[in-house]
Amino acid sequence: MLPKPQIVNLPVYQPGKPIEEVKRELGLDEVIKLASNENPYGCSPRVRAAIEHELSQISLYPDGSAAELTAALADHLGVSREQIIFGCGSDEIIALIARAFLLPGDETIMADQTFSVYKSNADIEGAVSIEVPLKNGAHDLETMLSHVSTRTKIIWICNPNNPTGTIVSKSELISFLDRVPGQALVVLDEAYAEFVTDASYQEGIALLDKYPNLVVLKTFSKIYGLASLRIGYGVGQIGVIKLINQVREPFNTTRIAQAAAKAALADQEFVNDCRTKNSRGIDYLFSQFQRLNLAYFPAHGNFIMVDVKRPAVEMFQSLLTLGIIVRAGFSKYPNYIRVSVGTDEQNQKFITALEQVLGE
Amino acid sequence: MLPKPQIVNLPVYQPGKPIEEVKRELGLDEVIKLASNENPYGCSPRVRAAIEHELSQISLYPDGSAAELTAALADHLGVSREQIIFGCGSDEIIALIARAFLLPGDETIMADQTFSVYKSNADIEGAVSIEVPLKNGAHDLETMLSHVSTRTKIIWICNPNNPTGTIVSKSELISFLDRVPGQALVVLDEAYAEFVTDASYQEGIALLDKYPNLVVLKTFSKIYGLASLRIGYGVGQIGVIKLINQVREPFNTTRIAQAAAKAALADQEFVNDCRTKNSRGIDYLFSQFQRLNLAYFPAHGNFIMVDVKRPAVEMFQSLLTLGIIVRAGFSKYPNYIRVSVGTDEQNQKFITALEQVLGE
Repeated sequence: MLPKPQIVNLPVYQPGKPIEEVKRELGLDEVIKLASNENPYGCSPRVRAAIEHELSQISLYPDGSAAELTAALADHLGVSREQIIFGCGSDEIIALIARAFLLPGDETIMADQTFSVYKSNADIEGAVSIEVPLKNGAHDLETMLSHVSTRTKIIWICNPNNPTGTIVSKSELISFLDRVPGQALVVLDEAYAEFVTDASYQEGIALLDKYPNLVVLKTFSKIYGLASLRIGYGVGQIGVIKLINQVREPFNTTRIAQAAAKAALADQEFVNDCRTKNSRGIDYLFSQFQRLNLAYFPAHGNFIMVDVKRPAVEMFQSLLTLGIIVRAGFSKYPNYIRVSVGTDEQNQKFITALEQVLGE
Repeated sequence: MLPKPQIVNLPVYQPGKPIEEVKRELGLDEVIKLASNENPYGCSPRVRAAIEHELSQISLYPDGSAAELTAALADHLGVSREQIIFGCGSDEIIALIARAFLLPGDETIMADQTFSVYKSNADIEGAVSIEVPLKNGAHDLETMLSHVSTRTKIIWICNPNNPTGTIVSKSELISFLDRVPGQALVVLDEAYAEFVTDASYQEGIALLDKYPNLVVLKTFSKIYGLASLRIGYGVGQIGVIKLINQVREPFNTTRIAQAAAKAALADQEFVNDCRTKNSRGIDYLFSQFQRLNLAYFPAHGNFIMVDVKRPAVEMFQSLLTLGIIVRAGFSKYPNYIRVSVGTDEQNQKFITALEQVLGE
């Protein structure tokens, strides 16, 4: 019963602490979770009806090809249906890409503080991960490019980057893609793209025609507010998506998730409204951090990394006792916490609690 | 963008044809699907309320450790919580086991007509699959044992076997487990165990204490009627489950699936009722096949493999035009169709249609 040696010591993913657990452990009535970049406005009201419509068919397998959702999404994105693959969150697409492409000894390049699932999946496949330090919290595409060799199979770019919230600009991205050799797959993880309002940001899907080695990841977990239902997707050229599909389990998304995603997609008014509110929340938090003299990275998703000038794990604990859950434990940023942008009221309560802890 | 060479030509899984598609294609009002071994009685009525209770939390990530469901299931099974791992159907547990244990060149042993997901996952990992012919439609454990070597990493036993419906008896299983060397993992896939009424059948969970190299797979997709929600599980000794957990994505089951499974588990009356009805359906179908002079394998799940004495793909098409969807295309049994046991009415309609086609 010997496992793959490389999996034995993989670090265990640390999820955001659940609200109910914190209430129970600390005897608190009200707990605000700003730890998992969930949508504080929930999801489109259309989702509930779509789910209820499926409740008579719980015992029937979902459509493994998610045909209806695929058709709706292809229309929305302006791509063909064969360019889309769905997964149990975009997490699963990352795992499928690693499983389809990485052989032991292959090289893969990523930032040194980014979404941890890229490296864990590369590790499982026995690939070598080259982690390139962020520069001012942002992807250093030039240095990443300098590490590309004939052994490079995948380059992961999280844009906006989780956890720092920074983006790479359109010109940086295109200059990078122009120079990456075609044998290396570039995975552009845009889980938070729908929150971005910066004019210099370029979504990857518009670039797919020009760069056949590009795959874009998106999710319904963030602005669409369907995190509990586990549905995300990848978009690329048909040939690449076909290869990723080869390692997909036949029924990897639920009937309810497919129906909910289709309903959520149809409600772009909800998406636009959430983007506006999130942007207002970022402005507010920035102004408060300035007032408190705290440095932060320019945030483009629905979360901000802020320097709390003390060990972040201590700040995490202090905020927890006040009923606010944030995220700490980022190895390269030991004094930074990552806080999700909440509702106006949640943001204010977070600032009040932060100020209290900072004053102690 | 070179993929793993072994994934390029993997066969594509052929799911049962969806009811709506058949209605549309053939202009039929009524279509009966007996192709995917779903529960014709749906799921426990308690499931709906459990799902509705979650609808206010769609935007929040599920509990990645499925703590509440794990606790309920551990109580039900009489195992510890650390012995359980959940997946997006038991399909995903198969993939996780392959991903955690199989290195290129490792050997894995399975029957030559069994659930196709074992082999596809072994293929993805670059492992060598030794497919041992079934004997009268049943696992030939003695011959499987004769293929075990120091390179054997996993032996897959589907019990009852999909698609033949046969079981291995308690004495065969124990004699086999006594002789399998401890370095080889034995995966006992019991997706259909809850349907079995034969006294010689032995469920694997009772054997876990004695055989540390045993992992048992179960699912909520079959007798529990939650196929659309994608939730299954593996049970083994703590050390093995811990290793499989190392390659699990953090949020691989949905909030709704966890709540639905917990509610379904609590309704064992529903399960028992479905077992009784299924058993009656098998008796009826057996008697009809005898009347029609058709051979069949002894069925212990909720499906029967029957020899229709002509190419099964032709029979599939003929039945389809009469509004009955079954399954054909089993390479080792070109003249057999697999039919799921339906309600009494569905079974009767299937027999009427089968008799009509046989008479043409």
